Amino acid sequence: MKVVVVGAGSWGSTFASLLAEREHDVSLNCRDPAQAQAIAATGRNPRYAPEADLSRVRPCVDGEARQALEVAELVCVAVPSAAFREVVTALPATGSPVLSLVKGFDPGSGQRLSTVVNGRPVAVLAGPNHAEEIAAGLPAVAVIASADEELARRLQEAIISPRFRVYTNGDILGVEVSTAAKNVIALAVGMTDGLGLGDNAKAAVVTRGLAEIRRIGRALHGRPETFSGLAGMGDLMVTCWSRHSRNRRAGELMAQGRSAEEAVREIGMTVEGLPTAPVLRDLGRRLGIDLPITEAVCAVLEGGDPNEIGPELMLRKPKPE
Amino acid sequence: MKVVVVGAGSWGSTFASLLAEREHDVSLNCRDPAQAQAIAATGRNPRYAPEADLSRVRPCVDGEARQALEVAELVCVAVPSAAFREVVTALPATGSPVLSLVKGFDPGSGQRLSTVVNGRPVAVLAGPNHAEEIAAGLPAVAVIASADEELARRLQEAIISPRFRVYTNGDILGVEVSTAAKNVIALAVGMTDGLGLGDNAKAAVVTRGLAEIRRIGRALHGRPETFSGLAGMGDLMVTCWSRHSRNRRAGELMAQGRSAEEAVREIGMTVEGLPTAPVLRDLGRRLGIDLPITEAVCAVLEGGDPNEIGPELMLRKPKPE
Repeated sequence: MKVVVVGAGSWGSTFASLLAEREHDVSLNCRDPAQAQAIAATGRNPRYAPEADLSRVRPCVDGEARQALEVAELVCVAVPSAAFREVVTALPATGSPVLSLVKGFDPGSGQRLSTVVNGRPVAVLAGPNHAEEIAAGLPAVAVIASADEELARRLQEAIISPRFRVYTNGDILGVEVSTAAKNVIALAVGMTDGLGLGDNAKAAVVTRGLAEIRRIGRALHGRPETFSGLAGMGDLMVTCWSRHSRNRRAGELMAQGRSAEEAVREIGMTVEGLPTAPVLRDLGRRLGIDLPITEAVCAVLEGGDPNEIGPELMLRKPKPE
Repeated sequence: MKVVVVGAGSWGSTFASLLAEREHDVSLNCRDPAQAQAIAATGRNPRYAPEADLSRVRPCVDGEARQALEVAELVCVAVPSAAFREVVTALPATGSPVLSLVKGFDPGSGQRLSTVVNGRPVAVLAGPNHAEEIAAGLPAVAVIASADEELARRLQEAIISPRFRVYTNGDILGVEVSTAAKNVIALAVGMTDGLGLGDNAKAAVVTRGLAEIRRIGRALHGRPETFSGLAGMGDLMVTCWSRHSRNRRAGELMAQGRSAEEAVREIGMTVEGLPTAPVLRDLGRRLGIDLPITEAVCAVLEGGDPNEIGPELMLRKPKPE
């Protein structure tokens, strides 16, 4: 299958290597010509995914990138959520399906990203998938969600491999909400790490965080199983507990006194929880849902004292669970 | 309140220190007179809970221990699951309530531990509560579950403090099943750690492990929220991801070639997942429920090759999630 991956960050590059392993014809559309050259010359993406084997992936820019999109049978989008709308709006009108690898909302409108895609079939891939480990050859499991079951099955077949197992899920809404919201919870959990509150407190915050995600999902009519599944609990857990997580790390840095901007600079990659937090808070308020962890994260992002987040998360008035 | 804690391991000692902080009159019944002497002399339990402040706890053995039980208004039991039945059967017939701090089943009968308590009100305390952190003064959250709501509320009031928040939960079955089963899942997760499969794989196994716990719970008519709550997901997570967990560590050692006995010797404390695994497997078989992770753990405990557990856990035939 002719596939284009748009976005040569760590996940886009790593996902391109998985597709090449399955012997698809893979173009990796880069924004930066120097990066494309480096990939072409070395078969690696030294800055964002040094371990991914890109020797059978074609890095493209400009005209070549547009041409690749013209003939693509599948377009995988792996750009920051803030760039998603622009990327899918500019796609040539071929009608080939879009697979979103992005975890966030459209920051301007607060819409789920899949709903920004017009005139073509759309699916979302999510799960506990830290790129660093997959690039290094370790096994992982993911979910492909689409309202179009046949598309989900077709993509599952195209992508699955012994080391990257893919399940299908019909609940695209639940998968998108889970994967966007988990980055906000990871910021809160990072703050508990930064405050040195320990693993017990951290587990409590993750548990209450998943309850928060579940409340939003229920209000929007997502399936409860999604929130307990790989794209819900699975991805939330690895984001909150793995040393690879940028969102958790950003929260940790902020609790230690850095501003959001300084944390992003230190991490050197997109931290999706930051634009997602206010979108999620506004969504919760609109739906009339109690989201104390999200509210606490937003308060810190707006200049509040991270030291106040601990009691806020842990010490609310006890009641029946 | 006059309280006896039976069992001076790490959790019993730490829990006694929490009760003393609330100014209860606390006896800590020890099996070993030398240990009781050490606690009396130093106000610490150097072997099992060096950081817990036991200066206001009265360590008891033999006659003094029996006497303390005679006048106790609450008996907290913190012994290995294998000793639970013997301990509660030998209690004087005062009718004072029992609070179980034990995570396991009665190994002989496979019964939930609370059902082994006869003739007195019973409750269970559970949650993400690694003793080491609580002894060190870090905050944590727990659940007290009882069929007797009034008892749960009374115990909540007696135990809660600013650093140990307690929720009540009416689903004692769900809490006991979750907390027993999570130690089995932690063995499997420790094996994925020992095999070096990475955090993505680990998150997948934990997620599928919770699904396994949820299936058992549903079959036994536990409440679904319990399995997603502090005693379910919360405790499972901290057991699987924290460096403090003995069960996770035991699985890791076994994947590196140690026998179960060697792992227990190296850890030096009870590893509840080991006796629980076959009980859980038999329960699953009796209920006709698919428990692939539990079955895989039992296969290793019965001499199977831990290297085979990775594919078993990760690479099953993909299907809708």
